[in-house]
Amino acid sequence: MQLKSLGEFGLIKHLTKNIPVYDRTVVLGIGDDAAAFKVSEDNFVLITCDMLIEGHHFILNKITPWQLGYKSLAVNLSDIAAMGGVPRHSVISIGWPDYVDLAYTENFYDGFKELAGQFGVNILGGDTVKAPQLVINVTVIGEIDRYPITRKGALPGDVIAVTGRLGASGAGLDLIRSEDALAILPGDVYRNLTNAHLIPVPRMLEARVLAASGSVTAMIDISDGLASEINHIAAESNVGAIIYADLLPVDGDTKLAGEKLNKDYRQWALFGGEDYELLFTLPAAKVSSIRDALGDQGVGFTIIGDVCPKKTGVLLASKDGKTPLHGHGYNHFKMD
Amino acid sequence: MQLKSLGEFGLIKHLTKNIPVYDRTVVLGIGDDAAAFKVSEDNFVLITCDMLIEGHHFILNKITPWQLGYKSLAVNLSDIAAMGGVPRHSVISIGWPDYVDLAYTENFYDGFKELAGQFGVNILGGDTVKAPQLVINVTVIGEIDRYPITRKGALPGDVIAVTGRLGASGAGLDLIRSEDALAILPGDVYRNLTNAHLIPVPRMLEARVLAASGSVTAMIDISDGLASEINHIAAESNVGAIIYADLLPVDGDTKLAGEKLNKDYRQWALFGGEDYELLFTLPAAKVSSIRDALGDQGVGFTIIGDVCPKKTGVLLASKDGKTPLHGHGYNHFKMD
Repeated sequence: MQLKSLGEFGLIKHLTKNIPVYDRTVVLGIGDDAAAFKVSEDNFVLITCDMLIEGHHFILNKITPWQLGYKSLAVNLSDIAAMGGVPRHSVISIGWPDYVDLAYTENFYDGFKELAGQFGVNILGGDTVKAPQLVINVTVIGEIDRYPITRKGALPGDVIAVTGRLGASGAGLDLIRSEDALAILPGDVYRNLTNAHLIPVPRMLEARVLAASGSVTAMIDISDGLASEINHIAAESNVGAIIYADLLPVDGDTKLAGEKLNKDYRQWALFGGEDYELLFTLPAAKVSSIRDALGDQGVGFTIIGDVCPKKTGVLLASKDGKTPLHGHGYNHFKMD
Repeated sequence: MQLKSLGEFGLIKHLTKNIPVYDRTVVLGIGDDAAAFKVSEDNFVLITCDMLIEGHHFILNKITPWQLGYKSLAVNLSDIAAMGGVPRHSVISIGWPDYVDLAYTENFYDGFKELAGQFGVNILGGDTVKAPQLVINVTVIGEIDRYPITRKGALPGDVIAVTGRLGASGAGLDLIRSEDALAILPGDVYRNLTNAHLIPVPRMLEARVLAASGSVTAMIDISDGLASEINHIAAESNVGAIIYADLLPVDGDTKLAGEKLNKDYRQWALFGGEDYELLFTLPAAKVSSIRDALGDQGVGFTIIGDVCPKKTGVLLASKDGKTPLHGHGYNHFKMD
């Protein structure tokens, strides 16, 4: 049987269906943004890892080594944020090809260290090997002083909310791939959107406030696109969901890029992936207190939908009516 | 500057020389077999990771998927053993090429799960992506209820000891590479030696007894060859060392393979690498009590040398006299 017919999620599900757990400290294993084990009554350790492979996750001449170092940590911090946790330690394995030089490796580490420094994440070690192309694996250890926020707790009646903006990263990726994007868009718009893709900001501050509120019922980070992630929450929480197309937070630069590239910006917002925003659910009665708590930190969120009973399914509501919203996000096995 | 002129250890040293540490919980960062942070007065968490890349660390048709799954965990467990720790959790990232099928991935997981089960190591998650060739990164989290055993504590007057046997893995690798090895050696000898290379036994039991003794002054696992590892201990502990060639524990199968392949088996024992035995130092006065404690568990060790003052250097003593023993172990950047 070919792996690509199963896809990434299908293969993981197949291979891990009979994985035993050997002790009671493990509270979350395979299947959420991070795994978790308990170290004391109110203290949990979180673990997550991501592998990035040249030619599959990035193109060497389309991202600077500094950006790549930054991003390889950012995607893992985002997974810790999705649990409501605080990142503490990292280990990094890198396979270096012989066509990168010492300056490249130094710039990569500088980008990694810059983001690690912003959040006080220790770099504890790793592995350094030779490889036919650049391969990066980062593992991040985090902690949280309450049970982690999972994908499982959304309840009908909750609202669905998202931090920041959607689609900028997807637009940025299309701009990076486009030959003439720089000629048709103002430089600051190009930079804003491509930076959203190349150096995404993990939502650590928002995660901390949301976890402290105790009111968030489910959370995930948007790595494979909003449509894919809301389907994960719905499936894990055993609920349905309605997303309102008109409420999606899309910035003016993304809309301008859609106009110039002749693309529907809502495709980026729904299916673009790599936004690394937090998608979460909370009781409607808690919206205002959480908005105040986030506002005190200078950040916020946008309500984009409602959690519904399971029989509703997962729907997109727009002026054309309601249509099923399938999670056909990015499939790592079908890229090429 | 080319990476291969620095080598693996030189590159790591260069890139990590100014890595900041952000909190006091970190007791061991980059530079030992595993990193460690403190969770309470007598409880430390250990972290280690290893990246294995097809064509560099293994050849796909020279190791079965079951063996590869087993080995990818074994090499990490050995690092936890080298600190005196107990492995608890693992996360695994794999880049699968399109020329492996579902059965291959299942067999890989079966090998991994077999060894994980032997030591009660939880498989908490990981990442699954597509890659041009098979890439594996395993991170293992361990724990230890005392300060970890590092490479730094060896003192002049200590003896140098090693678990198990040396050189079998190096012999096994040469047999695997040889076209006609099966024809010139008995089948059980071939299997014994190739298994030493393909499915090494991590010395978890020995590690636990040695840590509990409180008498081991320095420890490392032999991944790059005895000569390389004793030089690491000497450098980190600021001491010298003498290794006695006649005391190296080499089994009869390894000697027979040396005879048949016309190779000096001591080259395998000193420089072969991937033995995954524990190399450690201890005060001479503690030898007998530790021998008894290990003997109670049905295992043992061999004394192979003496720790000396730094000015002695690192020497190999044989009937031809004493010669400097350089740590020219396996260099991951010079393999091809």
